[in-house]
Amino acid sequence: MSNQLNFSGGPGALPASVLRQAQEAIAALPETGISVLGMSHRSAWFRGVLDEAEANLRALLDIPAGYHVLFLQGGGSLQFSMLPMNFLRGTGKAADYIVSGYWSAKTPIEARLEGPVRIVWDGQSDGFRRLPHADELALSPDAAYLHYVANETVEGLEFQGIPGLAGVPLLCDMSSNLLAAPIDVARYDVIYAHAQKNLGPSGVTLVILRDELAQRGAPGLPSLLDYRSHIAARSIYNTPPVFAIYVLMLVTRWLCDEVGGLEAMAALNRTKAATLYAAIDAAPDFYRGHAERSFRSTMNAAFRLPDPATETLFLEAARREGFYGLEGHRSLGGVRASLYNAVTLEAVHTLAEWMTDFARRRG
Amino acid sequence: MSNQLNFSGGPGALPASVLRQAQEAIAALPETGISVLGMSHRSAWFRGVLDEAEANLRALLDIPAGYHVLFLQGGGSLQFSMLPMNFLRGTGKAADYIVSGYWSAKTPIEARLEGPVRIVWDGQSDGFRRLPHADELALSPDAAYLHYVANETVEGLEFQGIPGLAGVPLLCDMSSNLLAAPIDVARYDVIYAHAQKNLGPSGVTLVILRDELAQRGAPGLPSLLDYRSHIAARSIYNTPPVFAIYVLMLVTRWLCDEVGGLEAMAALNRTKAATLYAAIDAAPDFYRGHAERSFRSTMNAAFRLPDPATETLFLEAARREGFYGLEGHRSLGGVRASLYNAVTLEAVHTLAEWMTDFARRRG
Repeated sequence: MSNQLNFSGGPGALPASVLRQAQEAIAALPETGISVLGMSHRSAWFRGVLDEAEANLRALLDIPAGYHVLFLQGGGSLQFSMLPMNFLRGTGKAADYIVSGYWSAKTPIEARLEGPVRIVWDGQSDGFRRLPHADELALSPDAAYLHYVANETVEGLEFQGIPGLAGVPLLCDMSSNLLAAPIDVARYDVIYAHAQKNLGPSGVTLVILRDELAQRGAPGLPSLLDYRSHIAARSIYNTPPVFAIYVLMLVTRWLCDEVGGLEAMAALNRTKAATLYAAIDAAPDFYRGHAERSFRSTMNAAFRLPDPATETLFLEAARREGFYGLEGHRSLGGVRASLYNAVTLEAVHTLAEWMTDFARRRG
Repeated sequence: MSNQLNFSGGPGALPASVLRQAQEAIAALPETGISVLGMSHRSAWFRGVLDEAEANLRALLDIPAGYHVLFLQGGGSLQFSMLPMNFLRGTGKAADYIVSGYWSAKTPIEARLEGPVRIVWDGQSDGFRRLPHADELALSPDAAYLHYVANETVEGLEFQGIPGLAGVPLLCDMSSNLLAAPIDVARYDVIYAHAQKNLGPSGVTLVILRDELAQRGAPGLPSLLDYRSHIAARSIYNTPPVFAIYVLMLVTRWLCDEVGGLEAMAALNRTKAATLYAAIDAAPDFYRGHAERSFRSTMNAAFRLPDPATETLFLEAARREGFYGLEGHRSLGGVRASLYNAVTLEAVHTLAEWMTDFARRRG
């Protein structure tokens, strides 16, 4: 199998130039002569890494003043708990949650440990094949906050607009589509994303957080679960995952210098997605997309073949061809092709052509 | 500077053979052809990594049946909170804490958020230069548990015996000396260690946990902060730090196959420590060790020079010589040489000889 044909749902592919630099850094960083794995997190070198990662993210996403950029541990799942611990506990309010897929279905479970939760829309009965229209959401102007997941990685559903009410803090899990396209950060109070889709390797989680909300967090929280600890310590409250953050910084540098920013990245991602969905739609009796067309994700295409036996044949043949990570999520089965930033258009063409050929031979 | 002369307090040095394998794995794992950074945490390959890491740890530490071996995120600091959340909250009991240095002084602060805490010994008034004798500890037979830190990384203090009372669960932070010597796991209920001293790179934390205690954890905990979630999911409740765990596995393999086990490692560590302390003691008017002699750590030697100006000269000259990471912790100042497993005896000889020469020239 090959890094160039890695379509895994995550941890996902990384750019070839980033892998080369990461590899060198394991032996010795050009700047210090020491392995990146042995560098102190309190060194000037690592402060420079954190500062460059933050500066690149601020430039790429046009993050306004008044937002913090934090590099934490624990993945999206720890954010599922940290957000209600900080911003629901003790408020006397309820929090609004949109349940639109496998991942967002987990979020209210953790929130209910901290306070009342309202499910303002639930797509489960429809099998998570579409996302809500704005007028379907039963939003409350007195909610502690509204939480949603911008891209459902398992089902391949991606919000086009931004839900919410003015005056209600908006919290969003962008684990699988942050840095794939420009976003309007000012519309959000918290944006978070684990790294292992578009940002870097697993082990680090990016949190972009409005200061005004952060300072209203609940009192008496465990230090490591209080955003204010990490703000005060500038992401080195305790030893961070140095290597994962270093690679994340290299990815942001690649986006700035090689890709040319998020408009360029988004255009490429649209072409990649169009290429793959065209192959699916060209064989409608053989490939069936999971999501309704208007809610299709640019990042994850989940689809089925006529029967489980054919799906098994497809996945075995794909592996022999060098494709990696095409199995559907264990909760849904079928096939999933993830088209994260580092997956090249050339790789998507290779997959789409092979799929078309497979459908012709087997369909 | 050079990896061979990395005396950093952490993240620390790693064995050269481990660095070589980690470097190869960034390009492509020999087993899969895919970069380790792009491998799925639910692949058979990664299950094999977790299983080998656990098996090697069970062999090296002779871990009895009835203990779980978990690979978590968040460092020692998150354990400072998870332990009282799971094992103090709601018990109606108080927990006993030994405060013996910079790190253990942080532990009761987090515990008090969950229940009453008794400080059974506090070395702060003595400047954390020694550890308690057994008869100085005001232990309670009805404590929820006793917590201590086996090796104080900042001050260079290491417990020789094991404190505690039969019938009281014993919880121990071994972040800076686990795998440096054999231990009697059966005496403990929880042993934990972040990786970035003797186990691997930062980003993963090892927890060895007696099942009987784990099952008595408090109800209603956030999933990611409940040990039972990680036990049930065998360390992949959510996406783990795949690369950090892979390197940790390589380190355990190195200990088994190249070092020959923990008795051999301990003998080498004793020789290394004796070599360095001999250089300190041979120039008593120039180098002053921080810890009283009978409490000296085999892992971290903290010492002072006659005055701050000489310390600055020493550290600058050391850097020019290729030594990395000799600055004392920011809370204590001075100099600290950390002698973790991957620091070779040859490197310690090089440092000791250079120190002797420096004292002669400057003393």
